[in-house]
Amino acid sequence: MRCIPIVSFGEAKTLKVCELSPSEIKQKETLADDEVLIEVHYSGINFADIVMRLGFYPDAPPRPFVPGYEVSGVVKKIGAKVGNCNIGDKVYAGTFFGGHSDYVKIPQWQVLKLPAHLGLEQAAGVPVAFITAYNAFFRMGRVQDGDKIMLDCASGGVGSMALFLLKGMKVDVLGLTSSPSKKSSIEKWGARAMTHEEFAKSNELDFNFILNSQGGKSIRKHFSHLAPTGRIVCLGVSEGIKEGKRDYLQILKTVISMPRFSVMELFNHNKGVFALNALHLMENQEWIKKRMADFNIIEEKKIVPFIGEIYQAEDVAQAHKALENKKVTGKVLLQWR
Amino acid sequence: MRCIPIVSFGEAKTLKVCELSPSEIKQKETLADDEVLIEVHYSGINFADIVMRLGFYPDAPPRPFVPGYEVSGVVKKIGAKVGNCNIGDKVYAGTFFGGHSDYVKIPQWQVLKLPAHLGLEQAAGVPVAFITAYNAFFRMGRVQDGDKIMLDCASGGVGSMALFLLKGMKVDVLGLTSSPSKKSSIEKWGARAMTHEEFAKSNELDFNFILNSQGGKSIRKHFSHLAPTGRIVCLGVSEGIKEGKRDYLQILKTVISMPRFSVMELFNHNKGVFALNALHLMENQEWIKKRMADFNIIEEKKIVPFIGEIYQAEDVAQAHKALENKKVTGKVLLQWR
Repeated sequence: MRCIPIVSFGEAKTLKVCELSPSEIKQKETLADDEVLIEVHYSGINFADIVMRLGFYPDAPPRPFVPGYEVSGVVKKIGAKVGNCNIGDKVYAGTFFGGHSDYVKIPQWQVLKLPAHLGLEQAAGVPVAFITAYNAFFRMGRVQDGDKIMLDCASGGVGSMALFLLKGMKVDVLGLTSSPSKKSSIEKWGARAMTHEEFAKSNELDFNFILNSQGGKSIRKHFSHLAPTGRIVCLGVSEGIKEGKRDYLQILKTVISMPRFSVMELFNHNKGVFALNALHLMENQEWIKKRMADFNIIEEKKIVPFIGEIYQAEDVAQAHKALENKKVTGKVLLQWR
Repeated sequence: MRCIPIVSFGEAKTLKVCELSPSEIKQKETLADDEVLIEVHYSGINFADIVMRLGFYPDAPPRPFVPGYEVSGVVKKIGAKVGNCNIGDKVYAGTFFGGHSDYVKIPQWQVLKLPAHLGLEQAAGVPVAFITAYNAFFRMGRVQDGDKIMLDCASGGVGSMALFLLKGMKVDVLGLTSSPSKKSSIEKWGARAMTHEEFAKSNELDFNFILNSQGGKSIRKHFSHLAPTGRIVCLGVSEGIKEGKRDYLQILKTVISMPRFSVMELFNHNKGVFALNALHLMENQEWIKKRMADFNIIEEKKIVPFIGEIYQAEDVAQAHKALENKKVTGKVLLQWR
């Protein structure tokens, strides 16, 4: 059994696939009554995994630990009281840490059957992007027909998932991207497309919903583009990580530039501010348990996550680099078998 | 023609009905093509009128000015191109300042026909309460079936309007009130009821939507009662005004205690904060024009605003005192004829 632990904080090249010790293997193979052992085929990599690798993720456990929030694979072994899957079933799952492993042990309520329209490689790209996009747009923002919507990360995993979820609604969606070459994908997915630069010049106003993933100063800028009664949902601080370096100054600058909104100020604008940390939502077991039924939408709407690149597990360093340099459009996966 | 201007800032007893000068009367009777002159029967008083009287309302025009945001009455005269009402029609309207007058001149798009189920005295209580409650619950909060909802002003004009708007939805609503004697009204309107003290002890959690009208420290307290992905809408600073006194210290304390939410902090909670100033919304002509159709809900849902007390216009000082001492349940109106 293998995994990709974070042993020391640093650049992508510090990551390597390691063998589990016999005692670790024994521990993983010993299941509680409600636990499931999954033979992992694909693991998703998220931006938070990079932040963790750099040592900037506040909730990470002490080193060494294994990051990773989503996997797909085949059920290898089940606990005595598991009722929702059988050995040999193809499944996918959100995990809370530990997903960058070739075997994952989790409680049965976290395990989801593979929808008929998805392959294993696609399903591994679903959990984090879906939880993020669905909660930002539908549980926080509660977008509805007639809304004018903007998202600043339309060509990424979350953005493309959001565009899929918005399909069929009567909404006007503007998707931003960093590079002109990615605009055609956004348009293919049914939205208008602009680069960040084009948007800055356009001065398009009156959005009912804005998704902000850049963080820092862009939040207040986007806030000013909202219509009265509109809302912004902030996703992260991707501005703070430049090319995967442990650049404290850059992080510090971004964190310091994250705005504070006084309620007195919000009164003057008649607007609202949310921030979403999907990993915190996944961490809240009581809450996420109740929300697992949301995943039915994947099958109902035949949602296919947009997979950008798949790397062999051994090439994890390259995979991290591809993600942190923002060169990939769509999800980045690791393949174990 | 008469009006109730704010001449000097101070206690309720500073308010008096004044006669308009001949030139002021002439000016009011001269209509632009799209303007309507309403013979006012009832004017609504709102908490903002008290804040203005005390001199604490930042957007008030220079003194002397006439406050007042809502009226009902009969169309007395119409401009050459007015097409939505005729002389003699019973109407009601949201006004931006100037409502505490026995004649009001406004553009036709602001004028609403009296719904068949309402009398003039009821209609004067609709505009501000409706714009506040509707935008807080439906345009900002976007409450939906399954939500657990709390409002801390359930026995007032906005609160009772909100409870009416929520009727027929599958929501769990908890209404707070200052006095145990008002609980039965809240229950009659279809919600669970608690006093603020009972709520403080109950530790009820997991609200998807909270309406906060108290301001100050209560905002953070209520924020902590939200479920993940939940939202709080802040309405005002009623805590800051104690018995209608120009108490700078009390106002200052409340304003200082209004929280600031950093986006970094919101990330940890997965929640959102809105603040609503209904008068600012009414001030935004371009926006409110588009939203006038929302008022159709009054007729569709047969909404009857909860009128607390009606005072003769001459007794305006008593009317202000009743509202600022929070002794009235429901809207406070002035009667002109």
